[in-house]
Amino acid sequence: MSSVPSSSAHAVGERGEFDLIARIAAHAGAMPVGVRVGIGDDAAVITCPAEHELVVTTDMLVEGRHFDRRFTTAADLGAKSLAVNLSDAAAMGAVPRHVFLGLGLPPACPCSWVDDFLAGFLAAAAAEGVVLLGGDTVAAGEIIVSVTLHGYATVGSAVRRRGARPGDDVYVSGTIGDSSLGLELLRGGFSPAGGFCDHVTAADREFLVRRHNRPTPRVRLGCGLAADRLVTAMIDLSDGLAGDAAHLTAGPPAVGVLIEESALPLSPAFCRTLVPADPRRRNFALRGGEDYELLFTAPPAAAAAVGEVSAAVGVPVRRVGRADDRPGVRLRRCSGEIIPLIGGFDHFAAAGSPSAAWEQHE
Amino acid sequence: MSSVPSSSAHAVGERGEFDLIARIAAHAGAMPVGVRVGIGDDAAVITCPAEHELVVTTDMLVEGRHFDRRFTTAADLGAKSLAVNLSDAAAMGAVPRHVFLGLGLPPACPCSWVDDFLAGFLAAAAAEGVVLLGGDTVAAGEIIVSVTLHGYATVGSAVRRRGARPGDDVYVSGTIGDSSLGLELLRGGFSPAGGFCDHVTAADREFLVRRHNRPTPRVRLGCGLAADRLVTAMIDLSDGLAGDAAHLTAGPPAVGVLIEESALPLSPAFCRTLVPADPRRRNFALRGGEDYELLFTAPPAAAAAVGEVSAAVGVPVRRVGRADDRPGVRLRRCSGEIIPLIGGFDHFAAAGSPSAAWEQHE
Repeated sequence: MSSVPSSSAHAVGERGEFDLIARIAAHAGAMPVGVRVGIGDDAAVITCPAEHELVVTTDMLVEGRHFDRRFTTAADLGAKSLAVNLSDAAAMGAVPRHVFLGLGLPPACPCSWVDDFLAGFLAAAAAEGVVLLGGDTVAAGEIIVSVTLHGYATVGSAVRRRGARPGDDVYVSGTIGDSSLGLELLRGGFSPAGGFCDHVTAADREFLVRRHNRPTPRVRLGCGLAADRLVTAMIDLSDGLAGDAAHLTAGPPAVGVLIEESALPLSPAFCRTLVPADPRRRNFALRGGEDYELLFTAPPAAAAAVGEVSAAVGVPVRRVGRADDRPGVRLRRCSGEIIPLIGGFDHFAAAGSPSAAWEQHE
Repeated sequence: MSSVPSSSAHAVGERGEFDLIARIAAHAGAMPVGVRVGIGDDAAVITCPAEHELVVTTDMLVEGRHFDRRFTTAADLGAKSLAVNLSDAAAMGAVPRHVFLGLGLPPACPCSWVDDFLAGFLAAAAAEGVVLLGGDTVAAGEIIVSVTLHGYATVGSAVRRRGARPGDDVYVSGTIGDSSLGLELLRGGFSPAGGFCDHVTAADREFLVRRHNRPTPRVRLGCGLAADRLVTAMIDLSDGLAGDAAHLTAGPPAVGVLIEESALPLSPAFCRTLVPADPRRRNFALRGGEDYELLFTAPPAAAAAVGEVSAAVGVPVRRVGRADDRPGVRLRRCSGEIIPLIGGFDHFAAAGSPSAAWEQHE
């Protein structure tokens, strides 16, 4: 049963599933402490550490819906497939540990693409101390990536979406809108013929595209905030600030959120590409998906401690608003006008959107 | 965010993802003991019981490769999607507990199909005490079902594929070959024009097709054998006896297996459909996949205890051979001749095959 991985010049269908499994197992690395059985049996066998909760998240990415091979390298997609799950774990405050990978591949897919995907996936996993423990490979009509991630949090420390209280500050990490703007640039929507953005520099374009193809899940920030019990609610930004903020308000008990437009954290590249007068700027900032930043709430008394965690992990956070006892999510525009903020993205209605786990209903 | 599930007359794409999530969450039921967060957050949060190992298995099923909507109802497919994972857990001797469901759906897929799929999936889960804790729904070009199952086994009791020793008896539960024969009947390969099987009765056809569409994972048998520490190695039969027996021999340490053709457990319907003189009989019995029976080894001294577990759970087991110190898997034909037994199924080379997890390499 010890076949040698084939040359990567072949297509997956030429060499078959067993060869592909050998390619994966050869890269998966040694089993960590607490894992008795990894790849190579009917199931993995794990001992959960005492005094900890197991946090489990799963996401599925489908070619043509969530990614486009013209716009992303295999290595970037591998890293991003893990990142979207790391981001969910980070939003719970869980330390990611083990991952399971389901991979559907068209038989014509080159082995070199699979090798590069795995290299990106496993390098991203290794960087976070995450080990691949199993999975499944199947033939499919399109590339499908299904990832299930396990993380651990000390008992009671995992942070939910519900829990914000009126008066809590609302924070966002990093910057928002970059990823959706990067995708728009990849799609050519901002070509010179479009008229608005002839002025995008190569460096800004590269930054924004990288924010789309190589998001940075805020694992250490989420874990730090949760470990110190500083935050009352937390979620990752996968569908845009407007839509994801609504999840914080759902309760029970329900709260409201007022977002200050003037406080939105926007990158220099974003601001240069979409200048303040650009009518599309607000939409990308508030409704652009796939930022994989953290949105969280904390009482004002925790502000200094939140800043200390932010500084310690090197990820900036910005107070963007406040929870209150009014209904829903509202935006105070720079003009002072307050408007209801409606967001969200329907994954059956449009291609290119991020994958959202079952986040909408309790 | 509290939308009411829509009428099932619509297509998935007409109503969108959030509606679908509501349909799923509405059916998922209450959270069991040990689960702090289920569907409705970034991740599920679980407390693993002390003195237990967590057993994790994942499988992906793709339309047109692993199933055909002409041949299976949505409810049967839902139940089978869970069953293939329950079977992996059973082969470890783990009690199944929690499940995560990734579902890729073409936008034109009727909501009624999804409802029926979920009804079948959740009824099969409830029958085994398994609770749906989360998942993901995405648009896709074909139906994709990705299931991750968690089970628990007391520390050290989970049974691996390696561990058989020369002299151990080799057992198979239930009967083999029925599922692949049922699939062949569904495909029309045994039509009257085919010449061989004009004599298949309606009752036999129904039995064989049901064995394909509604396999019965041997959860209680696997758990009983593992709990009593009776077996030295165990695997479920997903790719056919010939191929799966090879996994028992891989070690380390490597052992051989000699299978007795005269001892193969075949159902009356199988025997009536493929009579002993039929040249296809041996191939279906030895290489037909998707039986989801258990193949296991135990020392001869455990024979009586194995029989007691079998009787207690109401699942027959048959001794089909013996492990030895010769290389590989061999078959002793009814004629007395001993031949090497080569099996296996390549999932990229042919449609309609079962989904095999990464079973081939350690």
